Amino acid sequence: MARVVLGMIGLGTVGSGVVRLLSQQRHLALKKVAVRDPGKKRHVQLPCPLTTDVSEVLDDPEIEILIEVMGGETPALDHIFRAIDRHKHVVTANKEVLAKHGPQLFERARSKGVAIFFEASVAGGVPLISTIHKGLEANQISSVTGILNGTTNFILSRMEDRQESYQSALLEAQAQGFAEADPSNDVDGHDVAYKLSILSALAHGHFVRPETIYKEGIRSISSEDIAQAREFGYRIKLVGMTERAGGSREDGALINVRVHPMLVPLSHPLAAVSGSNNGIVVNGHAVGQIVMVGPGAGQMPTASAVVGDTINLASALKLPDFASYFQPSISDHWADTLPSGSWRCPFYLRLDVADSPGVIGQIGTIFGAHNISILSIVQRGVHEKGATIVILTQEVINSDMDAALAELKARDFLIDLASCIRIFQPVPSHAQRNRTD
Amino acid sequence: MARVVLGMIGLGTVGSGVVRLLSQQRHLALKKVAVRDPGKKRHVQLPCPLTTDVSEVLDDPEIEILIEVMGGETPALDHIFRAIDRHKHVVTANKEVLAKHGPQLFERARSKGVAIFFEASVAGGVPLISTIHKGLEANQISSVTGILNGTTNFILSRMEDRQESYQSALLEAQAQGFAEADPSNDVDGHDVAYKLSILSALAHGHFVRPETIYKEGIRSISSEDIAQAREFGYRIKLVGMTERAGGSREDGALINVRVHPMLVPLSHPLAAVSGSNNGIVVNGHAVGQIVMVGPGAGQMPTASAVVGDTINLASALKLPDFASYFQPSISDHWADTLPSGSWRCPFYLRLDVADSPGVIGQIGTIFGAHNISILSIVQRGVHEKGATIVILTQEVINSDMDAALAELKARDFLIDLASCIRIFQPVPSHAQRNRTD
Repeated sequence: MARVVLGMIGLGTVGSGVVRLLSQQRHLALKKVAVRDPGKKRHVQLPCPLTTDVSEVLDDPEIEILIEVMGGETPALDHIFRAIDRHKHVVTANKEVLAKHGPQLFERARSKGVAIFFEASVAGGVPLISTIHKGLEANQISSVTGILNGTTNFILSRMEDRQESYQSALLEAQAQGFAEADPSNDVDGHDVAYKLSILSALAHGHFVRPETIYKEGIRSISSEDIAQAREFGYRIKLVGMTERAGGSREDGALINVRVHPMLVPLSHPLAAVSGSNNGIVVNGHAVGQIVMVGPGAGQMPTASAVVGDTINLASALKLPDFASYFQPSISDHWADTLPSGSWRCPFYLRLDVADSPGVIGQIGTIFGAHNISILSIVQRGVHEKGATIVILTQEVINSDMDAALAELKARDFLIDLASCIRIFQPVPSHAQRNRTD
Repeated sequence: MARVVLGMIGLGTVGSGVVRLLSQQRHLALKKVAVRDPGKKRHVQLPCPLTTDVSEVLDDPEIEILIEVMGGETPALDHIFRAIDRHKHVVTANKEVLAKHGPQLFERARSKGVAIFFEASVAGGVPLISTIHKGLEANQISSVTGILNGTTNFILSRMEDRQESYQSALLEAQAQGFAEADPSNDVDGHDVAYKLSILSALAHGHFVRPETIYKEGIRSISSEDIAQAREFGYRIKLVGMTERAGGSREDGALINVRVHPMLVPLSHPLAAVSGSNNGIVVNGHAVGQIVMVGPGAGQMPTASAVVGDTINLASALKLPDFASYFQPSISDHWADTLPSGSWRCPFYLRLDVADSPGVIGQIGTIFGAHNISILSIVQRGVHEKGATIVILTQEVINSDMDAALAELKARDFLIDLASCIRIFQPVPSHAQRNRTD
């Protein structure tokens, strides 16, 4: 195979892993790496010079593929545009840039005849992008749902396994290097929203503006909810989903896309995704349901995805008109998101109420008036503050639940609406199961 | 995209599913299908004529891709060779032909400049082949382990869930169309051995002669073993594995490859693979561990894999020198298999012994003399036939266990060596987990 010359921007944790894996690929030659601080101590043997001048990478005509692993929105976005304009193919792990500027980036790449590969931007080492794009090519993908953030899954797993508080689990995640000093990007759902935008583009043909994606993080999840969920046969996970809700791939899609905590049935494969792993369920019209689980983060898993992309890109690079064959068809237009009022799912509620007669009756009446059927209701004795009631509902329209909760909050008997968490409903697999073997 | 003309051989369950999915692909034109019995009633609308003369498909110069879904070794093998000789690319779901004749088929394909795509030959709808070949391209794959036969997994799941006997669960599998009238191919491990040969080629570069693969099926698994395993925190699964044990991809590989029942820890993702699903664990040096779960059989999942291959092949077909870029590098030589004597794993044993003093002591002494450390030993009372003892060992060299069992069998106190089943040891993931997110 012919030698392909690469340039790279960024040499942090992932970048160092990429250098290590590239050293095992004889036909890939890394020519130069642009970094902010060339004096920084790095735990990797470099095969090429460093530079602080990105132009030395972006403007070098010999470099055919740019590997962007610096992360962040700026200046990475400018660098990627500049590489595309100079007819370089791009391999990137940058979910933020793709989610916020995907339509423009793919339009520009198309017009310049180059490809953008982005396996590492979602689910780290799990080859989810290539599975949807190539492995499930014969399918119309109806939904992609899963645990897409390793940091929050590490925190939730630890809260359950060791009965730790959110704060204590977060500190441990920070100590182990899974969470940053300011954990907001992970724990408030922004990171998952970026990934959902990218998965929407791949599965439904349209990126979704990250700011239009509903985000609810894990800061308010308590040990008590985790224990209660467990008792009912569930585990609390931060779940992201993108589901086609209407429109068409061509004319503009309506997408049900959101990230929030959910009670996942213990029997479901997503419940078994532990620690910093990611787990994803893909539903396709022919295949039914595929589940993938693996490291959603980490130096070498992420580098595995970056270098996998680079090898695949490089091996086909010399073929004429290559980019048009290998890029997923992604629209220049953003998708619309399904308004929250029409979402449907069952709910888990934990309420602190006054210890007085008729409270359960009033709750039941309010729910009934808003078309909410109760699946389970448990009150175990009373305590000094009153009584704690846990309710699991059947499937509810979101606007009905909002109205019922507003009415509940106006009643004197309600001391605290401690928790309101959605319950995951596994999608039945529609694929037929006739015998083959 | 330019229109690509296809021919097909076989129109059974999978073939009919392929026709249905192809009808959704406007640039793929199915020109002719060769079948044995053109009068047979089929539940699919055909876009093209049927023929009983395979030459009409194989010798038609307009047909660029042959889809082979007739199954079986002969005459499918001849048809595939003939198609290759006529410079047609081949998409096949035929694990038996690939496993038994893979080296010759891929050598011939290389010499004729055509590609063989075979996603459907292993794990049905789960895109395992493309994940290993493309998604994990940057990895040296050390092992592929998993549940590769949906029929036996259906039977074992049913035995556990409904406390049924093997015979009764088999009858149900036959009634539901999962098992054939003669179930030997599935329940004795032949089907898994074919798939392991193919996975060995993909992961390690060499096919393995199916007859050299150790096969132990599920006929002797009893409800009692399933219940005992459960008590110790395990579930019994038919596990196939192919693991690099030495040699090199280039010079000839030594492969630890086998299929036999195993006790899988309930906490391991493979234990959660239920019903007719398949589940596979792939270990790569960079990514660590990836798990995939999905329908390993069935009309539409298998057709999804066949048509996915066809689309991917067709979309790149016009590119010059295409086949050499897209075929995995597979050797013309068969791999050697690691002799059973040097396998290592813990064991589960169930023994019926005489109710006499010193028996446990004698067992312990025999095991100790053969370097076998006991992890757990349980005897719960005695019964009319004596006593039942269940033993879980620590890791044992296979030849040591063979020697110990031979010695046990020679002792008068042994009434019956009822069961001897290996215990699955999850491979620790070697990938580093530094923070990325």
